[in-house]
Amino acid sequence: MTYSAFDHPYLSGLLGDEAVAAEFSVAADIRAMLAFEAALARAEARHGVIPAAAADRITETCRAFSPDVAAMRRATASDGVVVPELVRQLRAAVGEAAAEHVHFGATSQDVIDTSLMLRLKAIVELFSGRLGGVISALEECDRQWGERSLTGRTRMQAAIPITVSDRLRNWIEPLLEHQDSLDAIDHDLFAVQFGGAAGTLEKLKGKADAVRETLAEELALVDCPQWHSQRAAIADFAHLLSLITGSLGKFGQDVALMAQAGDEIVLAGGGGSSAMPHKQNPVGAEVLVTLARFNATQVSGVHQALVHEQERSGSAWTLEWLILPQMVGAAGAALRLATELAGNIRRLGAAFPAESSREG
Amino acid sequence: MTYSAFDHPYLSGLLGDEAVAAEFSVAADIRAMLAFEAALARAEARHGVIPAAAADRITETCRAFSPDVAAMRRATASDGVVVPELVRQLRAAVGEAAAEHVHFGATSQDVIDTSLMLRLKAIVELFSGRLGGVISALEECDRQWGERSLTGRTRMQAAIPITVSDRLRNWIEPLLEHQDSLDAIDHDLFAVQFGGAAGTLEKLKGKADAVRETLAEELALVDCPQWHSQRAAIADFAHLLSLITGSLGKFGQDVALMAQAGDEIVLAGGGGSSAMPHKQNPVGAEVLVTLARFNATQVSGVHQALVHEQERSGSAWTLEWLILPQMVGAAGAALRLATELAGNIRRLGAAFPAESSREG
Amino acid sequence: MTYSAFDHPYLSGLLGDEAVAAEFSVAADIRAMLAFEAALARAEARHGVIPAAAADRITETCRAFSPDVAAMRRATASDGVVVPELVRQLRAAVGEAAAEHVHFGATSQDVIDTSLMLRLKAIVELFSGRLGGVISALEECDRQWGERSLTGRTRMQAAIPITVSDRLRNWIEPLLEHQDSLDAIDHDLFAVQFGGAAGTLEKLKGKADAVRETLAEELALVDCPQWHSQRAAIADFAHLLSLITGSLGKFGQDVALMAQAGDEIVLAGGGGSSAMPHKQNPVGAEVLVTLARFNATQVSGVHQALVHEQERSGSAWTLEWLILPQMVGAAGAALRLATELAGNIRRLGAAFPAESSREG
Amino acid sequence: MTYSAFDHPYLSGLLGDEAVAAEFSVAADIRAMLAFEAALARAEARHGVIPAAAADRITETCRAFSPDVAAMRRATASDGVVVPELVRQLRAAVGEAAAEHVHFGATSQDVIDTSLMLRLKAIVELFSGRLGGVISALEECDRQWGERSLTGRTRMQAAIPITVSDRLRNWIEPLLEHQDSLDAIDHDLFAVQFGGAAGTLEKLKGKADAVRETLAEELALVDCPQWHSQRAAIADFAHLLSLITGSLGKFGQDVALMAQAGDEIVLAGGGGSSAMPHKQNPVGAEVLVTLARFNATQVSGVHQALVHEQERSGSAWTLEWLILPQMVGAAGAALRLATELAGNIRRLGAAFPAESSREG
Repeated sequence: MTYSAFDHPYLSGLLGDEAVAAEFSVAADIRAMLAFEAALARAEARHGVIPAAAADRITETCRAFSPDVAAMRRATASDGVVVPELVRQLRAAVGEAAAEHVHFGATSQDVIDTSLMLRLKAIVELFSGRLGGVISALEECDRQWGERSLTGRTRMQAAIPITVSDRLRNWIEPLLEHQDSLDAIDHDLFAVQFGGAAGTLEKLKGKADAVRETLAEELALVDCPQWHSQRAAIADFAHLLSLITGSLGKFGQDVALMAQAGDEIVLAGGGGSSAMPHKQNPVGAEVLVTLARFNATQVSGVHQALVHEQERSGSAWTLEWLILPQMVGAAGAALRLATELAGNIRRLGAAFPAESSREG
Repeated sequence: MTYSAFDHPYLSGLLGDEAVAAEFSVAADIRAMLAFEAALARAEARHGVIPAAAADRITETCRAFSPDVAAMRRATASDGVVVPELVRQLRAAVGEAAAEHVHFGATSQDVIDTSLMLRLKAIVELFSGRLGGVISALEECDRQWGERSLTGRTRMQAAIPITVSDRLRNWIEPLLEHQDSLDAIDHDLFAVQFGGAAGTLEKLKGKADAVRETLAEELALVDCPQWHSQRAAIADFAHLLSLITGSLGKFGQDVALMAQAGDEIVLAGGGGSSAMPHKQNPVGAEVLVTLARFNATQVSGVHQALVHEQERSGSAWTLEWLILPQMVGAAGAALRLATELAGNIRRLGAAFPAESSREG
Repeated sequence: MTYSAFDHPYLSGLLGDEAVAAEFSVAADIRAMLAFEAALARAEARHGVIPAAAADRITETCRAFSPDVAAMRRATASDGVVVPELVRQLRAAVGEAAAEHVHFGATSQDVIDTSLMLRLKAIVELFSGRLGGVISALEECDRQWGERSLTGRTRMQAAIPITVSDRLRNWIEPLLEHQDSLDAIDHDLFAVQFGGAAGTLEKLKGKADAVRETLAEELALVDCPQWHSQRAAIADFAHLLSLITGSLGKFGQDVALMAQAGDEIVLAGGGGSSAMPHKQNPVGAEVLVTLARFNATQVSGVHQALVHEQERSGSAWTLEWLILPQMVGAAGAALRLATELAGNIRRLGAAFPAESSREG
Repeated sequence: MTYSAFDHPYLSGLLGDEAVAAEFSVAADIRAMLAFEAALARAEARHGVIPAAAADRITETCRAFSPDVAAMRRATASDGVVVPELVRQLRAAVGEAAAEHVHFGATSQDVIDTSLMLRLKAIVELFSGRLGGVISALEECDRQWGERSLTGRTRMQAAIPITVSDRLRNWIEPLLEHQDSLDAIDHDLFAVQFGGAAGTLEKLKGKADAVRETLAEELALVDCPQWHSQRAAIADFAHLLSLITGSLGKFGQDVALMAQAGDEIVLAGGGGSSAMPHKQNPVGAEVLVTLARFNATQVSGVHQALVHEQERSGSAWTLEWLILPQMVGAAGAALRLATELAGNIRRLGAAFPAESSREG
């Protein structure tokens, strides 16, 4: 409610993002966890591990299941994970015949990590589109003012003249690369998590690989062996989120510097002040810097979580839960603010075109 | 709603803390911001800056004022801060005669930073008591098993025998120091923020210091000149929060290691597993480590925010809003979990007292 | 001399690495910077920007040039970069005819960033081989003890039995991925830096792209437009260094935990104690954890440096110089220590093979 | 040699500091470690733990002892700490009669941590003086230009006029507070470390406290029980180092912004460019920002090291060695650069005094 600015009752006006919140909400989390359980049941039935009727019953129940979140909350307090309670509730809901076949051979981490992968995959598609929006807006700026002159600045000093196009290139190129990275990640990074109690899928015996392959197919995720204690994929995703906010932070910092200088940018939509009513603050530009520095801070914690001991570390894993959603929130906010900021640029560079382009 | 585990619909069962959330809620924030405006009005009336009647009207209105949070949210999106809108609403509520006297000479940062100080002061009192609870529980452990033998371990190897008391001392002493630090901070750190548009209180002319002194008195905060761009107090508080979670993290890590070894601790209340129903996981111990590493990550961002340019930096300041509440949430959760964990210790050290204490 | 443990007079025994130090030494840096200047001259001569004779003279001089490092040090104090002085010295050395053609159209950042890329490329090849060594040693462990039983441990509790192979898989697989990433980076990431004063290569007019392409060829680096203020490549490399130390840190943490438990690992080569002469500390294992947490800390600073304002930021760029070499040193040390540790494993898992493998 | 810019052959021209390097050198470290051993011998003799003649012999030998650093380096590679080898060498040097009395009851951590405390204490005195130098230079600026007008800037926009004095206050006040903190730390924080193998001084039996008290006296350090696994004092010192660089970073950022604007500051001593020979870069100002962000990054690692398991953690402790010296180096460089920068200010604020001060 108040701990995170991204969903804070009023700060979310500045830092929130409704589309991201929707994709990354608890409702989406629960849907994804139930999708795992249903897909697991179907995959296990396909390979004769559980009866087909049980798989049908589980799938049907999951489709409409609305768990008791308050009970999930109480259970998480003692179990440290939400899944034992969710499974308990699901078993009760499917009824006796199918109950023992729910979550067969799986462990909590399989459910929670897979749910995360499903939701991050949706986020990636959203972000790729958003990046496209920022890029388009900046390319429009290039079309409008690209030839205008701008003072190139190095080491906080005027250097030599450059064009607006030169400056824009430094904003646009990284975003194109990040879009490519998002597309690559969409294809390669989102893997199913399925390893059972201690990663050996011991209950599935010789059928483990086949069941997992089908499970991945059902969920449209990459099939690969369990990665319970191998957290590089989480770090890779956090890295890309921070590259995105970092590049947008440079854009914001450059705009803020131009806004302070005053003569090489005209912006619409500045923020008001309670003390100086005529002031127009480049709020979006400043907040892009904030979000860059925020994610740069968080990325350290995700790397600390790589030290994930033994077959499952509660301490390292829980650290991911505390950090990764916020990095997603930060990137979502940055993409939204960057789109607005780029759209608010009314002029870049010199007030008049350069001589050479005015002639003829 | 979902970005932060501290107020997440189900993760908050493990990581939330209702008392901290209440003290640090938006309702508390709004109350504190209104307390600032009312106290400012009274202080300004005391020194003849505004009419006494206006101060009375403002105070009366603030007492029961329930702002339109949705409008605050919309305004924050463009202003970057919530105060211009809050002040607009308050002016409308107090009515024409008093409206121009609301927020006279102040700026948004005065309201927001002072509100933070008021709420952190309340948190400190809560935390000091909580620390006392952990200390008491551990001192009780000392009374019960202090003389038992324990294998001292250095560099992940058995070293020489020590006593349970020796181990407990390393847990308890830092907490006593942190309690002293909380008490000192309670006395010295929470200062009023009052500087006006660019820190010079230019609208109050010769009465600035006197008004500020009275304002501080009204709010029971320390009086000192504005610290708009001097953020060391924020960093000092974040530092102490991280020392607390760090010391509790060492406690948790030690318990987790003893729980894995199995022979030198008996714990009640372990967490269940979805895959291994008879397993009792030392969840609280592990999560104390998580919270330590979480705050150790966050503290970097608060230090980055020390680079706060000019008279007010939107980018550095906003970074504090993204990070500090979470550090408070982490410390609150750690104090709660540590109290539970200490209370769940059923035995420490050797199963039997040492020979010397069994004789006679 | 003493600030960094990696080249500290005695701590380097534990944390240093001579092969990495050699590839990443100042002598190598100077060689690489001179290689840039010579290659630039040849590329410019190829395209008629400077006389061929000047390019020959510059190349010949660079080959044997031994700059006055003390003068470089004095100049860096005021210039903030070493290149203006290096170029001054080089111009004096080539003599009047060629002097004006030294460093034509280039800027300090071109030299420094390109030198870094050349040296990181050499490091990558070294590291890829080193990872191969760790992988081989662990695969040998798998051949020897892979079938032995091991207690799977989740959440710091005994879970179910697994095999040594299962545990080794979690150590080996990430290293194989990192090796693939190093190979990909070797192919794609190391780009020439060439942009001139403010990134527009204004002095080369229409020949800029051609000269840069030839320059890249000469240096066996990827050709692409300047990336003066686009620092994602630096962050990508830092990310991979931290993934490597993170994965090796998990290996170290697991070994340290097994060493403390005592019954599932036998190690040679433990460290001595000044107080307990018979103690064998799993020093290498512990230090792998240190190096993981060290790089996880540093990676944040490299991400902060993504906020690189305008055409060149002295503050963001200098932050890279303070951090990146150390991450390389940490990764080098981790690879060395991991190789030693893997080679020191004398047994993993149960003291005797499982029943099934003892029969027949 | 090359890993740290603080002692890099040419980067140290910009980022090094000879006085700090001297106080914090290996020679100083060895002197301090020998001072510990000699003081320990004297304290133990005082209380009859070892013969007075042995204490004399040890003290005499330590005074002139020049250890074999290469051997220390080799031993550190396997022991993980340098002290077992140093003690071996010292025992050989004192000769048979006294050898067994060297390092009696102590452990490596006692020597290493105490040496650190001795050297940090010397650093604190140096830094306090340096801060005084920066403060003086800024106060001189205040005397010269304090009344000049300056554009107050908030949120990267011109706000209202302020005076140079107002801006200087925000630079000077934090430095005065940090000086007070350094003085308090000098008095309270530097404690002797003496706990023996696992913190219980088991070899000294009833004389442990008395010996430690005398040892502390001998070394002019605070006496308190061992803090082997309680690392808050290290974190407190790191915190203050980062507050210092943070405050100096704000000073640097403000100067860089003024230098870019160009009309409200005149600086001498800017850095040259290889591409734009007439450019004067505010290098010192930019690097102050770098050093602030560097220490803000490092402080996270010191907080991670608070999770120091059991009686001694090799992994957490070694992390301190990798990080703390660099934070000291960064603070030393920042103090030096800030003194130079403040001394290079030739004008602040408006080119002419304000009307009011020009009249009469």
